[in-house]
Amino acid sequence: MTTAIIPGSFDPVTNGHVDIMQRSTQMFDRVITAVMHNSSKKPLFSLEEKLELLRISTEGIDNLEIKTFDGLLAEFARKEGATVLVKGLRSVTDYEYEIPMAVMNREINTELETIFLPTSPQYRVLSSSIIKEVARFEAVPNGFVPPAVAEALKQKLSER
Amino acid sequence: MTTAIIPGSFDPVTNGHVDIMQRSTQMFDRVITAVMHNSSKKPLFSLEEKLELLRISTEGIDNLEIKTFDGLLAEFARKEGATVLVKGLRSVTDYEYEIPMAVMNREINTELETIFLPTSPQYRVLSSSIIKEVARFEAVPNGFVPPAVAEALKQKLSER
Amino acid sequence: MTTAIIPGSFDPVTNGHVDIMQRSTQMFDRVITAVMHNSSKKPLFSLEEKLELLRISTEGIDNLEIKTFDGLLAEFARKEGATVLVKGLRSVTDYEYEIPMAVMNREINTELETIFLPTSPQYRVLSSSIIKEVARFEAVPNGFVPPAVAEALKQKLSER
Amino acid sequence: MTTAIIPGSFDPVTNGHVDIMQRSTQMFDRVITAVMHNSSKKPLFSLEEKLELLRISTEGIDNLEIKTFDGLLAEFARKEGATVLVKGLRSVTDYEYEIPMAVMNREINTELETIFLPTSPQYRVLSSSIIKEVARFEAVPNGFVPPAVAEALKQKLSER
Amino acid sequence: MTTAIIPGSFDPVTNGHVDIMQRSTQMFDRVITAVMHNSSKKPLFSLEEKLELLRISTEGIDNLEIKTFDGLLAEFARKEGATVLVKGLRSVTDYEYEIPMAVMNREINTELETIFLPTSPQYRVLSSSIIKEVARFEAVPNGFVPPAVAEALKQKLSER
Amino acid sequence: MTTAIIPGSFDPVTNGHVDIMQRSTQMFDRVITAVMHNSSKKPLFSLEEKLELLRISTEGIDNLEIKTFDGLLAEFARKEGATVLVKGLRSVTDYEYEIPMAVMNREINTELETIFLPTSPQYRVLSSSIIKEVARFEAVPNGFVPPAVAEALKQKLSER
Repeated sequence: MTTAIIPGSFDPVTNGHVDIMQRSTQMFDRVITAVMHNSSKKPLFSLEEKLELLRISTEGIDNLEIKTFDGLLAEFARKEGATVLVKGLRSVTDYEYEIPMAVMNREINTELETIFLPTSPQYRVLSSSIIKEVARFEAVPNGFVPPAVAEALKQKLSER
Repeated sequence: MTTAIIPGSFDPVTNGHVDIMQRSTQMFDRVITAVMHNSSKKPLFSLEEKLELLRISTEGIDNLEIKTFDGLLAEFARKEGATVLVKGLRSVTDYEYEIPMAVMNREINTELETIFLPTSPQYRVLSSSIIKEVARFEAVPNGFVPPAVAEALKQKLSER
Repeated sequence: MTTAIIPGSFDPVTNGHVDIMQRSTQMFDRVITAVMHNSSKKPLFSLEEKLELLRISTEGIDNLEIKTFDGLLAEFARKEGATVLVKGLRSVTDYEYEIPMAVMNREINTELETIFLPTSPQYRVLSSSIIKEVARFEAVPNGFVPPAVAEALKQKLSER
Repeated sequence: MTTAIIPGSFDPVTNGHVDIMQRSTQMFDRVITAVMHNSSKKPLFSLEEKLELLRISTEGIDNLEIKTFDGLLAEFARKEGATVLVKGLRSVTDYEYEIPMAVMNREINTELETIFLPTSPQYRVLSSSIIKEVARFEAVPNGFVPPAVAEALKQKLSER
Repeated sequence: MTTAIIPGSFDPVTNGHVDIMQRSTQMFDRVITAVMHNSSKKPLFSLEEKLELLRISTEGIDNLEIKTFDGLLAEFARKEGATVLVKGLRSVTDYEYEIPMAVMNREINTELETIFLPTSPQYRVLSSSIIKEVARFEAVPNGFVPPAVAEALKQKLSER
Repeated sequence: MTTAIIPGSFDPVTNGHVDIMQRSTQMFDRVITAVMHNSSKKPLFSLEEKLELLRISTEGIDNLEIKTFDGLLAEFARKEGATVLVKGLRSVTDYEYEIPMAVMNREINTELETIFLPTSPQYRVLSSSIIKEVARFEAVPNGFVPPAVAEALKQKLSER
């Protein structure tokens, strides 16, 4: 049985993320979406909000768990019995950025492989940061984020 | 149960290929190394020689099968019940070359995912063609091909 | 008044090409699709077939002309009074390949600019060569080529 | 009639920017240089200084207007009746960075195309930030910025 | 006689840096490791600590000097009579980042060439920042930093 | 004393090549331009013509020798006592192509380093193949090849 982890900030989750999760659960017996808890960066959504949005957005996807971690991802994987990290690959820049992390993670935990899954073409340009950028102007196009996220973005940004 | 396919020409198999095979069998229940039978290109080794070298070089790797295919890879995958293609990723050039094939394969067979596995650092520069290039001068460095391949290269090139 | 040229082999025209043509006619007063006549390469379709497929596939696009050229593209542009070359940009590899041609064309004809138009996401992986590759197995996915091209591919490959 | 926009921070304008502006006015009937007003970043030059330097540096270029915008670029384009964004393309990194913005802008405003114009070779390495970096040491090479900008940089940095 | 400079932050020095230094001293008569003194960034190690770690880590490498500079690297090179800058090249991203600096440095000091030396494969993923990242979790793999640096990282991070 | 080799086909030599040679002789005590003798490819110019054009084009560059080699470059370097290969670097594609050769050459000859020298901006798009392409139409721009090469191209192509 293989357990795979999809790590990320998910600030907020997009349809690109959900697509990667769905496809990963087809390949692996158990998949964990792991939300990084990083105290130094200021996210738009709190950890609780991120988890709630993830839960709503992934309803109906079987064998997917949603967890949080702080500390070292390679250690979290060991604790969970996971041997695979799944990364969505959108571009050459993504690839170049992720390769050193992948090699380093295997140095720290020799059983931990990183695999890259090419983003579906319609989500190739999608990122949490570009969504937050256009959300400031209430201009998030349809089909890029789950409905609950669209709603949460509206509310969050009207509070400002 | 997930079946994965590692497609290629394997003309000849290198230690970089074997490394990808070993790592893939850790992740997936059943792995098939699929040698493309392409009548138009003139390979150095015949299909039979390639298969024999693959068999010798992968002895001891469990749950790995070695097969050949001609025709469409996406169709071969369907027949084998495979839902994953595994590609070693050495460089940006590899990535750019493989992405269109990956998307096209999923268009033809919607259940077929392509995942990329970064080549281990020591094999990053290794390819069958660079091996054939230096083999012409009997200069294949140790550790780049399995012993049987080193031997076969010597013999093949002395025949010329 | 600006005249733009979209040069290519169009062996055969794909929906990605048609998309670039449509979008170019929105930007420029007059657009010429220029089919390169290259006697050394063996195309799948003859020059006459290419032109016919282009005509059928671009019916209804205003201010688009379809022409052929041999010789130097920069000279053809001069003769046509064109000052812009339009290139679809799918990937980093495309970009790297096209930049030297673009600079060289401006060296030869200082009034000739090359502009790059990013391919629409759904056509990012599309090329005439990948279409010909999968057409050999009658596996061209819907939506990638105009209907007339799909038909012509079937007929052409059954003749073999 | 086609209106094109060249958006940017222009902190400060370089000869690379001016080159893109000149070439764009050859292609399009009306060109707007649009200075982004971004209250969160701390530019070296104020919005007023940027506009003044742009005006002096582009004297003699016909059919070019200089404007400012805050808010969403795709909305500003709509208001101005512009259907083209022009981006100078220096490198693979530029390309990778700009593609998601280009696709997103067309999602928000379906009539808005982004075209890429390769930077002239002599300006390939030029950016406002590298100019500011070397200006701190009074080492801006000749030919990289308009005379008025060279002067303004000297004065601005002596005030510190 | 050619003098070469290896500039950097060295916060801290890694085995990848030491490898570049060793190889550079084989090629050039005199090599200077030049530690950039940048008052605006907050490094983990002080300038004195960096110099001390560099000295210990490069013991036994002949014709290598360790110096500091602030101000313009091209000017420091002139003062030292150096005509070559050596940069380790790990990836496409490195290359894209370094090219503009290289061209700019030659603009400022026409005798100053920048050469790129490809990082040895085992250090391809290594950077000071990834080391600091994993050091926070006491997870620096063996063989990535000199022993003195491993020790210093432990001590530095336990002080926090 | 360091000997460096600049290997290539030089079919024909361009001003980009000459620029790399001039700059290399500033850095290294002895520089050898090594023309690869490759019997399988059909060059435009014969080995004798290439050598003659190289000699004329590099007159006045001190400490530069022009030689030919067949067989393994790493062995040729050993025989010549050379420890450095110099490669001009024009683009990301060049870099990706050259890195495996560089690592392989160091595997075969552990004392042989490959260094990359970025092409001067005005020659960034220049290659022997693009020159041959435009020479067919008598359209080689001034300043891209030495006068003797311009002359030889004219004569060679009129013979056809």
